[in-house]
Amino acid sequence: MSNQPAHPTLLIPGPIEFDDAVLQSMSHYSESHVGAPFVAVFSETLSMLRKLFQSTDPASQPLVISGSGTLGWDLVAANLAEPGDDVLVLHTGYFADSFADCFETYGVKATQLKAPIGERPQLPEIEKALKEKKYKLLTVTHVDTSTGVLSELQKLSELSELVHRVSPDTLVVVDGVCSVGCEEIEFDKWGLDAVITASQKAIGCPAGLSISYYSGRAIESFKARKTPPGSYFASFKNWLPIMQNYEAKKPSYFATPSPQLIHALHTSLTQILSIPLSERFAKHKATSQKIKKAVADLGLKQLASNPADQANGMTAIYLPENVKVPDLLPNLLQKGVIFAGGLHKEIATKYIRLGHMGVSIMNEGRGDVEKAIEALEVGLREAGYERKE
Amino acid sequence: MSNQPAHPTLLIPGPIEFDDAVLQSMSHYSESHVGAPFVAVFSETLSMLRKLFQSTDPASQPLVISGSGTLGWDLVAANLAEPGDDVLVLHTGYFADSFADCFETYGVKATQLKAPIGERPQLPEIEKALKEKKYKLLTVTHVDTSTGVLSELQKLSELSELVHRVSPDTLVVVDGVCSVGCEEIEFDKWGLDAVITASQKAIGCPAGLSISYYSGRAIESFKARKTPPGSYFASFKNWLPIMQNYEAKKPSYFATPSPQLIHALHTSLTQILSIPLSERFAKHKATSQKIKKAVADLGLKQLASNPADQANGMTAIYLPENVKVPDLLPNLLQKGVIFAGGLHKEIATKYIRLGHMGVSIMNEGRGDVEKAIEALEVGLREAGYERKE
Repeated sequence: MSNQPAHPTLLIPGPIEFDDAVLQSMSHYSESHVGAPFVAVFSETLSMLRKLFQSTDPASQPLVISGSGTLGWDLVAANLAEPGDDVLVLHTGYFADSFADCFETYGVKATQLKAPIGERPQLPEIEKALKEKKYKLLTVTHVDTSTGVLSELQKLSELSELVHRVSPDTLVVVDGVCSVGCEEIEFDKWGLDAVITASQKAIGCPAGLSISYYSGRAIESFKARKTPPGSYFASFKNWLPIMQNYEAKKPSYFATPSPQLIHALHTSLTQILSIPLSERFAKHKATSQKIKKAVADLGLKQLASNPADQANGMTAIYLPENVKVPDLLPNLLQKGVIFAGGLHKEIATKYIRLGHMGVSIMNEGRGDVEKAIEALEVGLREAGYERKE
Repeated sequence: MSNQPAHPTLLIPGPIEFDDAVLQSMSHYSESHVGAPFVAVFSETLSMLRKLFQSTDPASQPLVISGSGTLGWDLVAANLAEPGDDVLVLHTGYFADSFADCFETYGVKATQLKAPIGERPQLPEIEKALKEKKYKLLTVTHVDTSTGVLSELQKLSELSELVHRVSPDTLVVVDGVCSVGCEEIEFDKWGLDAVITASQKAIGCPAGLSISYYSGRAIESFKARKTPPGSYFASFKNWLPIMQNYEAKKPSYFATPSPQLIHALHTSLTQILSIPLSERFAKHKATSQKIKKAVADLGLKQLASNPADQANGMTAIYLPENVKVPDLLPNLLQKGVIFAGGLHKEIATKYIRLGHMGVSIMNEGRGDVEKAIEALEVGLREAGYERKE
């Protein structure tokens, strides 16, 4: 079901497997970054992002910049907060620590609200924290790629509602690197102010693009800054006019975009939007539940212990005590599937991660998920593991 | 001579036309960014960059990061200078202004040494400036993409020698975005401390990678900082261990690299290094002279009036008074070649730019250069221009 050369199936929580047509777009012949044909493709790409975020507010703004997902943190920290501002970082794993580091780089004071591994801060604690101090913004990792914890659908909109009620000036910032494209996000309806993500996860385009989306309120907050933005390459001042021009089909230059990556993103977004988003999210959820049932049937536990906190695009699985990550992963590779090791510092050696996003889910004919489950079952058995009843 | 679909030949000063094999590498199937096969490719890519810079000093350090060439300015400004430091920016056009802006973003005081359009600051003025104030670093745009001015071979090594003699603690920083891969650079021998560039020009790999190279002295200067780096995404602190690990074939993670772009860069560097670099530079120079002769034969003038200041990978050409850029460029496009318009603010409407780098030069069978010259001749004639003797 794929025209690509034989290769192990990549089932880590990003980069994911890519569709043939998307990879084909990566080889697009060279075009001027300010020529009409490419400008039209970039314009359509930005318009499609509005649809992906289910946003119709013309004051909102998509940004697509050459970079990694990590660049999204700089975009938030250098533009939406000012030196000396307090921000509240909800901690669910590795990525909150790094986001907090990023804020500190720009002189912004980050307060982390922590939760035990595999859990997430709860609304009453968040309400308490919001009442104690004035926070310029709050960040939440929608899906923590290190733990597979989802700050899930209903809770994300409830969280936003809480912030708007208790601290109405605080911006709601979502790290959606591992959620955009596989978890429902209704940007306008939920009252979000920023979602940052990357190309290589559920959006299904090779790595190399920082993709983010901002509310009119976030843009106004940027325009009202008393100090200039703290970064040059990540400055809204430099990028907003460029993105607005591209979307209006006017050539514009600050830094040279990557036409090949933009073509690939255009192809993947066209595919994503070819069916209702609700179908896409439902399919990711159904497949995720199938995988999680298989994991439970094997007698294994997830890091995200509460079913309501489990991501739909990845699963983080504790290994049995006698099975070691550096033994199991090469065995799975021999069976033709690539899983990821652990990432959360404190327990990295004790678990593995399986990504299930994008074409591996939407194109069932590939058989990627079945292959992964079977490999895991056989691999564990070969490692001497037997389920205890 | 190319397997690509028919398309207008892109002859702007970047992005350039790409070789078939390079574009093919862009479609590489998905790989883990921390898996052994990709890590080996990244390692070889970093080693090849050392050769491209003709550098053998093990203390030097290549960086390859997802981003645009512009990100190189942040890498320099946020790591090699500290807030309050003075830096000297040699001005040859558009790009010096922007680099200076970037320094100011990070609290670094940029003094610009300006020259008339089409010229460049001369050594005696530079010596005078270096004696007047202590500069943390000096920046020079090796080839200014806005004007086609080259701070050329002999002068760049002479400039470096001058800095080392007059102000030995001052780092020598080269903006090589439009020079690396088509103009000679001997990093170690010339005593350079940093060269920043991008993938889509003479290196011949699609846009999306910031490529830069630092001396051991520059790295030591970073390590001796009294303040932390001013950027998170562009922080040496975050990137140096990652690049050192990748080169040593150890998986490492700070931000997800783009495997497809790294594969394409690997292919283009392999091609570049398949013949002696001196041959490559000589061929660019010979073709450039042919183009410049054709321009002179047409009775047209270059922005870079002094032959010793003319870049070998691009030519910026004043149009005759009665020929307008917005009329000529579409006419050239109809003839199947894409030239660029002017970029230097003060005279943008008066000139056009022709890029001649990479595969269009090295693969003569493509006939790109002949096609460009012929299109320009016919296009000007059709616009009513006749050479006055």
